[in-house]
Amino acid sequence: MQELRERILADGEVIGHDILKVDSFLNHQIDPAFIQRMGREIAARFVAAGVTKVLTVEASGIAVAAAVGLALGVSVVFAKKRRAVTQQGDLYAAKVFSFTRREAVHITVSPKYLRPEDVVLIVDDFLAHGEALNGLVSIVRQAGAALAGAGIVIEKRFQRGGEALRAAGVRIEALAAIEKMENGEIIFA
Amino acid sequence: MQELRERILADGEVIGHDILKVDSFLNHQIDPAFIQRMGREIAARFVAAGVTKVLTVEASGIAVAAAVGLALGVSVVFAKKRRAVTQQGDLYAAKVFSFTRREAVHITVSPKYLRPEDVVLIVDDFLAHGEALNGLVSIVRQAGAALAGAGIVIEKRFQRGGEALRAAGVRIEALAAIEKMENGEIIFA
Repeated sequence: MQELRERILADGEVIGHDILKVDSFLNHQIDPAFIQRMGREIAARFVAAGVTKVLTVEASGIAVAAAVGLALGVSVVFAKKRRAVTQQGDLYAAKVFSFTRREAVHITVSPKYLRPEDVVLIVDDFLAHGEALNGLVSIVRQAGAALAGAGIVIEKRFQRGGEALRAAGVRIEALAAIEKMENGEIIFA
Repeated sequence: MQELRERILADGEVIGHDILKVDSFLNHQIDPAFIQRMGREIAARFVAAGVTKVLTVEASGIAVAAAVGLALGVSVVFAKKRRAVTQQGDLYAAKVFSFTRREAVHITVSPKYLRPEDVVLIVDDFLAHGEALNGLVSIVRQAGAALAGAGIVIEKRFQRGGEALRAAGVRIEALAAIEKMENGEIIFA
């Protein structure tokens, strides 16, 4: 998506050789109209897949996932990052290591909101090492639901998180795919 | 907002005498079209306030805040719940106790995205004891920005979180206000 690549080049900050900070429009401040355009673009790529539910994980994925759900006319479920007092009973769960936060969290989804008859589109802001995506795929499998694929805003290809899933036949669409980041420069795939 | 009150009565679960679980459309699963309607309603109530930025806190407030921002044509900033590796330098911060999670968290906002010239509308999913709202108001004050008020989806009046702020002149608008919850029954204000 040309607008996204331009925005990454204009506003993205490369930290070290593997962190891309896009706090100005995606991860801390969001531009709602731009989020809607990205959501519609992800929705368009999966419009023929018969999606019945969008699945993401709190927090940065929520706005984009809501825009995808709005465009497809389906509900959005966001996995929670720990068990809250209001979450009771059996939950689908996966352990996810966050390289940004340097800690493992449990992500959980209530079986009420992900059913075996669902066709699920996973949406997230970043795909890097694939920890969150693998956790979300595991939750879709636990629910016995069908997986339409994953729509990602920014994929950092060099961290190879998508390789195993693509090899296993999972369709992954990224709006911007970064081949490498060197000396603060961003090179798209 | 009539549609919201009906939805709360149809889908809300009262746990004990103070927790209202609305996981089916707001806090775990979200209905994107309904979220848009709620966002437009909050935006309409503050349309004359000259809002330049919407402020919320991750995670459940993000979808509604994005809808408000879209309707008002302004950016949305979501306070983060702890310092991540990608957040560096001085931050506006407030300590917030979560009664749902029974723990205190630090919420932070980068000074880059909240400026003294901003007119800020705070948006959140719930107002109960007022912990999150007080923390967000503190952050607006730290930034030296003007506060247009707060737009809340569900206010639980009996937990009195809005009283001190209203007494101090802060305008708080709730789409649904609950006077009390008794024996699983929800009584609106």
